[in-house]
Amino acid sequence: MSNAADRRAKANAETLARLNASDPVLVDVRPAGEVVPGMTPDMVLTSGRPMGWADYTGGQRQALIYGAVYEGLAKDEADAAAKFAAGKIKIGACHEHGCVGSVAGIYTASMPVFVVENRAQGNRGFCNFYEGASRKRLNYGSYDETVRQALRFIETVLAPVIGAAVKAAGGIPLKPIMTRAVHMGDELHSRNTAGSVLFTRELVPQFLKLQAKEGDRIRQTLEFLQLNEYFFLRLGMAAAKSMADAAHGIEGSSVMTAMTISCRGFAIRVGGLGGEWFAGPHAVVEAQLFEGFTKDDIEWMGGESHITETVGLGGFAQAAAFALQKYQGGSADAMVATNRKMYDITVGESSAFQIPYFGYRGTPTGVDIFRVLDTGTTPVIDGGLAGKGGGQIGAGILRAPIECFQKAAAAYTKRYGGR
Amino acid sequence: MSNAADRRAKANAETLARLNASDPVLVDVRPAGEVVPGMTPDMVLTSGRPMGWADYTGGQRQALIYGAVYEGLAKDEADAAAKFAAGKIKIGACHEHGCVGSVAGIYTASMPVFVVENRAQGNRGFCNFYEGASRKRLNYGSYDETVRQALRFIETVLAPVIGAAVKAAGGIPLKPIMTRAVHMGDELHSRNTAGSVLFTRELVPQFLKLQAKEGDRIRQTLEFLQLNEYFFLRLGMAAAKSMADAAHGIEGSSVMTAMTISCRGFAIRVGGLGGEWFAGPHAVVEAQLFEGFTKDDIEWMGGESHITETVGLGGFAQAAAFALQKYQGGSADAMVATNRKMYDITVGESSAFQIPYFGYRGTPTGVDIFRVLDTGTTPVIDGGLAGKGGGQIGAGILRAPIECFQKAAAAYTKRYGGR
Repeated sequence: MSNAADRRAKANAETLARLNASDPVLVDVRPAGEVVPGMTPDMVLTSGRPMGWADYTGGQRQALIYGAVYEGLAKDEADAAAKFAAGKIKIGACHEHGCVGSVAGIYTASMPVFVVENRAQGNRGFCNFYEGASRKRLNYGSYDETVRQALRFIETVLAPVIGAAVKAAGGIPLKPIMTRAVHMGDELHSRNTAGSVLFTRELVPQFLKLQAKEGDRIRQTLEFLQLNEYFFLRLGMAAAKSMADAAHGIEGSSVMTAMTISCRGFAIRVGGLGGEWFAGPHAVVEAQLFEGFTKDDIEWMGGESHITETVGLGGFAQAAAFALQKYQGGSADAMVATNRKMYDITVGESSAFQIPYFGYRGTPTGVDIFRVLDTGTTPVIDGGLAGKGGGQIGAGILRAPIECFQKAAAAYTKRYGGR
Repeated sequence: MSNAADRRAKANAETLARLNASDPVLVDVRPAGEVVPGMTPDMVLTSGRPMGWADYTGGQRQALIYGAVYEGLAKDEADAAAKFAAGKIKIGACHEHGCVGSVAGIYTASMPVFVVENRAQGNRGFCNFYEGASRKRLNYGSYDETVRQALRFIETVLAPVIGAAVKAAGGIPLKPIMTRAVHMGDELHSRNTAGSVLFTRELVPQFLKLQAKEGDRIRQTLEFLQLNEYFFLRLGMAAAKSMADAAHGIEGSSVMTAMTISCRGFAIRVGGLGGEWFAGPHAVVEAQLFEGFTKDDIEWMGGESHITETVGLGGFAQAAAFALQKYQGGSADAMVATNRKMYDITVGESSAFQIPYFGYRGTPTGVDIFRVLDTGTTPVIDGGLAGKGGGQIGAGILRAPIECFQKAAAAYTKRYGGR
């Protein structure tokens, strides 16, 4: 091996080792403004690489406006747009603040976030709450009185009750839940049924203790948890963010440590290439749309839930989640083939997430940008799809665009003099 | 089609329809002596077709003795044996009393049972409680102070608390839990992880209401439920028994409606052949034994948990439960092949239990004795294995012996003049 290849192999092995050593623990639930690094009261976070106000368009622009109105930073939509344009309301990119956004990924200072501490490496990841099963949600670019009330319910009921239970429990380790959920048919991106049930189970002993004080809020919280099988996604995302960030910043690593989507396109970040984002066009989609919608109705308004794929879940664990067919289409055979192909572009296997169908083989983990280029295979992503005018209109498989990897490889070669 | 064939086809279709229409609901938890039909205070139920005391041998004989001592029907083992021999303690066959036994399947009058009502057809099925994860359990032919205390814990804590929750809930429908559990990696015989978690979830809202009254017993119950992923098996068994019994007794049906194991061998019952049991030798075993044990250590001491296979679960749903490999060996490919073969010997598919890996195809349901004979394929069973001297020593796949089906077919031909 050449010196460069040797250094890269070692750096990539270290990247994988850090991913596998990670130990994400839910330690708190707090308003974003109190815990998210760099978050200020006049800031709205959103998915995608950092951009200026003028770059935001369509549903994502609308979602930013709605976020500002929800937070009381502007009196109406026009006021919000003017304040964004004037820089009186600031825009932050979630990934730059330890957060990951679901679809538009709107965070405002008052919104509660899960605080996940990676106890192996000491860093933290954050994610806000799932808004519920309604097609109309702020993160899908919708806003009305129902959306607002759902957000307030999170703030006044779900977050304080779950936060109190988490603190009473002394933190809830997420890795064991995630490991087990993958054995129970979740891939933890588009299917979170087992994760949600297992997480709820961890809260119950604390709910019993807190009941005298919290009473009906606990009943309401349990009811929400029972109804919403997607609930765990945000915990998985925060955990994955804490894992991926811990694996980022290793000199010489060619492993992808983040993917992000905005209204303008896809972008990735690489472990050995600092904070730079390598941008490309939008992902390619194989979707199963809800009744009445066509591909033309799909709108890109952001997304970073594929932090799960970044750490070996989601599309990289499809063969653990055949039940997902109903939600996003496809067949078991296709899921197996798609999942198997991811081993061609990864540097190793997860020690935490195993696929029973593959004889408990660890999920393919740590996408190497050069393996992507050598094989022409880009990461597969299980994802929800937003529609024009807001709301979710379906789910399906997304494939990251090759251009991001080409740009990253060029930067890598420039920086390190070779692969 | 001949008249006979036509009648048989109709009867078998009706058998399948009744299985699929079944609606098992957990309605109560009560001492066996209060609810099990024909159960008397001086009776011990056990697995297997009805036999006399002299026929019981080894671990099953020992388990009957232990049951009598536990119930206080005898002052010691010798006294119990003498009273069984003299008919002062009676022996009943579980299946004849609406019950199904796990391994030795010991029921005494004071033991709590799940009362499952099949709301579609009005009949009831019963099963007693899982004793916990200890290798030593009464149902595996072991008895000591620890076993006794575990049984008392069921009687004084688990049963009253769960019973109160079930009544407060107005009954807990089991079919939706079972349907979902199969989508979450359970086949509901040797894997009950999802079923147990989902069942617990149904109890929690009631636990919150009962907490002021029950206090620490609820904490203890939750702890037991959390630790014991096998808990749901007994609920699945009672549900399956209520389904299979509802499908039994249709004139002309050649569908198997029960399987049973005793220390003397295997036996089956057929829908159109009344109460007769068709006996054969012991099942053939492909086992994964716990460390240190060999095949020579296996002892047959009974078993009726394969009521689950009778209604399209367990071995008939293996391809829904690839995670089972760790417990009972084999490979995903073998599980798929084994499961697929069961479609060759069944009259139809379950409308409630679907296998995501097979594109949500319903599990093979309703074993036709003639299809078994035509193909030479006998039902596959996921099962736990007992060892000599008591205790569980492993798990694996059992195959029902062909002799039972040959005898049943002969009886069918004799009774109906042809198939």
